[in-house]
Amino acid sequence: MKKFINTPATYLMDSLNGFAAAHADLVTLHLEPLVLTRRERQSKVALISGGGSGHEPLHAGFIGHGMLDAACPGQVFTSPTPDQMIAAAELVDTGAGVLFIVKNYSGDKMNFEMAAEMLSTSNATVIINDDVAVENSSFTTGRRGVAGTVIVEKIVGALAETGANLEDCRLMAEHVNSRLASMGVALKSCIVPAAGTPTFNLPDDEIEIGVGIHGEPGRRRSPMASASSIVAELLGAILADLKPEAGVEVLLLVNGLGATPVSELYLLFNDARCQLEQRGLRVSRSLVGNYTTALEMAGASITLCLLSKELTALWDAPVHTAALRWGV
Amino acid sequence: MKKFINTPATYLMDSLNGFAAAHADLVTLHLEPLVLTRRERQSKVALISGGGSGHEPLHAGFIGHGMLDAACPGQVFTSPTPDQMIAAAELVDTGAGVLFIVKNYSGDKMNFEMAAEMLSTSNATVIINDDVAVENSSFTTGRRGVAGTVIVEKIVGALAETGANLEDCRLMAEHVNSRLASMGVALKSCIVPAAGTPTFNLPDDEIEIGVGIHGEPGRRRSPMASASSIVAELLGAILADLKPEAGVEVLLLVNGLGATPVSELYLLFNDARCQLEQRGLRVSRSLVGNYTTALEMAGASITLCLLSKELTALWDAPVHTAALRWGV
Repeated sequence: MKKFINTPATYLMDSLNGFAAAHADLVTLHLEPLVLTRRERQSKVALISGGGSGHEPLHAGFIGHGMLDAACPGQVFTSPTPDQMIAAAELVDTGAGVLFIVKNYSGDKMNFEMAAEMLSTSNATVIINDDVAVENSSFTTGRRGVAGTVIVEKIVGALAETGANLEDCRLMAEHVNSRLASMGVALKSCIVPAAGTPTFNLPDDEIEIGVGIHGEPGRRRSPMASASSIVAELLGAILADLKPEAGVEVLLLVNGLGATPVSELYLLFNDARCQLEQRGLRVSRSLVGNYTTALEMAGASITLCLLSKELTALWDAPVHTAALRWGV
Repeated sequence: MKKFINTPATYLMDSLNGFAAAHADLVTLHLEPLVLTRRERQSKVALISGGGSGHEPLHAGFIGHGMLDAACPGQVFTSPTPDQMIAAAELVDTGAGVLFIVKNYSGDKMNFEMAAEMLSTSNATVIINDDVAVENSSFTTGRRGVAGTVIVEKIVGALAETGANLEDCRLMAEHVNSRLASMGVALKSCIVPAAGTPTFNLPDDEIEIGVGIHGEPGRRRSPMASASSIVAELLGAILADLKPEAGVEVLLLVNGLGATPVSELYLLFNDARCQLEQRGLRVSRSLVGNYTTALEMAGASITLCLLSKELTALWDAPVHTAALRWGV
């Protein structure tokens, strides 16, 4: 296993300590339980997310103005625990309540549910399940939550900054989730540090279409293919799910899974944008980069979000986090 | 070869078309010759860089307010041609002259020199050679120019926005270059699309200390080691070159070479920061991410820049580019 680590046991804390030091203007790292909170406090609905580590910059990289107020990192590919979520809520609640944004994995759902029940502060939860690749998977019942989560966090984060109440924030998160669809593809597996061996094995000339962000199986193995035919397959599944009307404006996110260089992500973006415009859709907003990774997996995912005037304005609103920043 | 490409021959244009479409608010892509220019024009010294492709987001990702006015992308790992540089200069010169920022590779130097001689507009050139790994290399005489180039482009870009003249911009670029040192390490080779096979072969348990951003050999092959011992070796070489006085403030850049996830880069940052502070240096500014890559090479580099009040203020000045953005 060739990784930049000291020991598998210290990997998470070494990485989080680096993150917290590099972004000390934005976040505070709390220990026992492990929580990252936003440095600048504001009286508004608090947004909290979390999940297994290994998907960086998700979620800690999205703490800051216009997005999250706290993140709860679990061990690699392992749900955080209810005490982390409770501590996070108590640290960032300003009286307006707490919205938990949870990717649809059984462990995360169960632990966030437990935390929600134990919390005395008012709270609500939204489950993100944007991955159209498969129904039910290794770690979950129903569709998985993947890179579309970033779009939910951005849009609901902007709404929360306007002073919207908890129920309106929850409804907006549900609304965005209903207009999101994603699908990924792997060229090479990742290696979980504690395991030390690849999560799955792909022959040198095969790819996994519909892979999950923990290396869960997708729809099928396929021989290596051209970028445009891979994009066509991902977009086909995404559009079959979203069924957008012609002429609708979309946000196109091309997300790297960790080991794919940005030049290839822009190449995928180019193919995806051309194919969408050929189908009469207009890519009016875009995001290209590593936003929801799977350790050092080589691969990428495509996410579409159907926009409206309201969603576009919330997407464009200022954001200041470690991984996403504009307008401030 | 598993890459997201259509054909090796179309790789560069497909990727650049995606980049230009995703950042149409910032850049304009010109064909024949291939040049990217900044959309928003301003009367000031124009900064132009360029070099072989495969190092994205360098250089096109740094076009915009507070950094570059144009970039000339060559084919992968191949210098751009003088006609690109001349076209770039003619497109962005506003009468205040043009500064060429050139990484120290023989092909780039020769072609930028030729362009400079043929240009009627006033111009100057600075050669960046921050890589302390080796003297002389596969593609160059003297030290290579690597990730420190981003710091030169940022600081001189900020100075140019203040209305500084060409000679002052050139002197500042030389000054920053003299206070920069970098060294990299590879865990895995990249594959040049047109070649289709790895540039070099590393056994499963070995790393290349001091690797260049085209896969040039470094100082030595070493068995895989802990992150902190790798960091110690890179910092040792960097500090032996810079010989900073105790108490000096530094900018610490941990740069990914393409296939290393940001969680590992933050882990390297954590080790580097702790080791620097133990030596009495203060990391007052930092940057962690993929800024100067080598296609899909797994690996990272560390760059230190010795700061001063003036350099810190220029580093902090607003910047709005595809890959670096703050304050606007």
